[in-house]
Amino acid sequence: MPIRAFAATAAGKSFEPFEYEPGPLAHDEVEINVEYCGICHSDLSMLNNDWEITTYPFVPGHEVVGTIGAVGDMVKHLKVGQRVGLGWTARSCLTCDLCIDGKHNLCQQVDDGMATIVGRHGGFADRVRCQAIWALPLPEGVEPKSAGPLFCGGITVFNPLMLNNIKPTARVGVVGIGGLGHMAVAFADKWGCDVTAFSTSPAKEGEAREMGADHFINSKEKAALEAAANSFDMIIVTVNVPLDWDMYIQALKPTGRLHIVGAIPKFEATWMPIIGGEKSLGGSPTGGPLAIRRMLEFAGRHRIAPMVEEFALTQVNEAMEKLRSGSPRYRIVLKNDLG
Amino acid sequence: MPIRAFAATAAGKSFEPFEYEPGPLAHDEVEINVEYCGICHSDLSMLNNDWEITTYPFVPGHEVVGTIGAVGDMVKHLKVGQRVGLGWTARSCLTCDLCIDGKHNLCQQVDDGMATIVGRHGGFADRVRCQAIWALPLPEGVEPKSAGPLFCGGITVFNPLMLNNIKPTARVGVVGIGGLGHMAVAFADKWGCDVTAFSTSPAKEGEAREMGADHFINSKEKAALEAAANSFDMIIVTVNVPLDWDMYIQALKPTGRLHIVGAIPKFEATWMPIIGGEKSLGGSPTGGPLAIRRMLEFAGRHRIAPMVEEFALTQVNEAMEKLRSGSPRYRIVLKNDLG
Repeated sequence: MPIRAFAATAAGKSFEPFEYEPGPLAHDEVEINVEYCGICHSDLSMLNNDWEITTYPFVPGHEVVGTIGAVGDMVKHLKVGQRVGLGWTARSCLTCDLCIDGKHNLCQQVDDGMATIVGRHGGFADRVRCQAIWALPLPEGVEPKSAGPLFCGGITVFNPLMLNNIKPTARVGVVGIGGLGHMAVAFADKWGCDVTAFSTSPAKEGEAREMGADHFINSKEKAALEAAANSFDMIIVTVNVPLDWDMYIQALKPTGRLHIVGAIPKFEATWMPIIGGEKSLGGSPTGGPLAIRRMLEFAGRHRIAPMVEEFALTQVNEAMEKLRSGSPRYRIVLKNDLG
Repeated sequence: MPIRAFAATAAGKSFEPFEYEPGPLAHDEVEINVEYCGICHSDLSMLNNDWEITTYPFVPGHEVVGTIGAVGDMVKHLKVGQRVGLGWTARSCLTCDLCIDGKHNLCQQVDDGMATIVGRHGGFADRVRCQAIWALPLPEGVEPKSAGPLFCGGITVFNPLMLNNIKPTARVGVVGIGGLGHMAVAFADKWGCDVTAFSTSPAKEGEAREMGADHFINSKEKAALEAAANSFDMIIVTVNVPLDWDMYIQALKPTGRLHIVGAIPKFEATWMPIIGGEKSLGGSPTGGPLAIRRMLEFAGRHRIAPMVEEFALTQVNEAMEKLRSGSPRYRIVLKNDLG
């Protein structure tokens, strides 16, 4: 039976119904009956071919929640009917240094079809497939209708807490209160940290505090940024525009970490304050399957759910237009209504 | 009795004999009878007032080896006659978060006289003073005549191994085979690592291999740099000139660390490879007293000694000229001949 999906036939085009024959299910893959699928900024970047890796017809969607519809004959740990999620990565080699170290998301050994929407067709569809290790069961406390964004945006902002060994005694800053940032605030809050939200929109202060922010800084106010000097153990940057990086480095405590997950093109900073304060900079992409499992358990135990606006899958063009305008609060999820 | 020293009376001037009265010894300080004192590039930067913090008459010297001549009345752990070394830091508050975490070198609470040559007179002299915690005894195996450079240059390149939890299984690159770099190669080699020396001088290959390098890359050869992609767990950069940072980031393995201790003014790089490879960047200045103790023990056990050229203290101007010309191999040490 063909998979029914929505695809764009060229860069920047709107989505149209598209059917494709998925062929026989691979030994190590599963097929997911899509219930919900979040929309991520990288779906938009891929639609526009910003990274010059898109092939058309292009089916986006890599924040999938659904139930297992079929399992390949080598798959023993998942069962038909089980509810799972799928994020950016759909396949990894499982044998390279990185995969056997739990960092499957950094695997460089899969030539094609590593990412759910690169060389594969994604989750804007009634069904989608992935290697079984990347279909991760939803634990108790995680609601299917809002869980999709955890699988890409969520793990992207959760993993910096794990990777940098952030302690609950830490002061954490989150720059940008949007799709990623609002989850970062909630995770850092439940992690036990003192959390500061940085936003250029003062109107977001109330919601940021509801999400768990203890403090709010209007990042357009240079004086407020200056007053925050030597304050933070880690600042997570979720925006993808150039900032006055020297100011954010100054806002770190000695030994602090500036962790930029937003897809900024270039980074430029004065280096001596980094040496003098033993500071560090870094970035990371999503996380390995174990990091995603831990993130899901943590979200379930603490009832952390992305704030979502729901659209029907058949309204995908309206939903994408809303994302393009930058107005969703805070993440859009499509509900499969293909029946 | 006045301290006899060499001082410059203005930026860039040559050194002349200079005497000063040190006053009563502070309760928590010691006075060191200088035997040897290394010359560091930061002595030259301070001489030239490059950092706009120099006061004149200026007495450089912060790689001191000598014997304790006197101890303040609160000092219990050091004895007159004991041989010690003194590096960049001469005083820290001992009470701030950083000091009580062992990171005394990052202390920001000492208004004046924290560094041996900033707001104090340094070791180009027959005697020099410091807070007792910063006078660190030389363990067995560390030779006084070459130990001076360990206390600034040495700890600067040793500490990145400690701070970044580098394992002996790691592949480490060292960029710049000079005063700092030649010690970095020796430390990383004895740490158990696979060590690659990067230099623009192919003539240094033989010596770099004698110091412990397993591989040598002529960093002017772009093809050699490209061939090193995905190779290194850490690259320590000891030069203070701008490099093609994207190339060095590419040379890191996924999760690798670019650690720049050279006083480069600006850093600029393309960010997506850092996110995609979960890579990080950082810097650090010297180390705390415990890090220095561990470095000294390690150097003593492994017989790691800086390669030094000895000048008499009274030849300080010739020595400084040699440093200015960039030709020492690899570090200059002055021997106190004031009698």
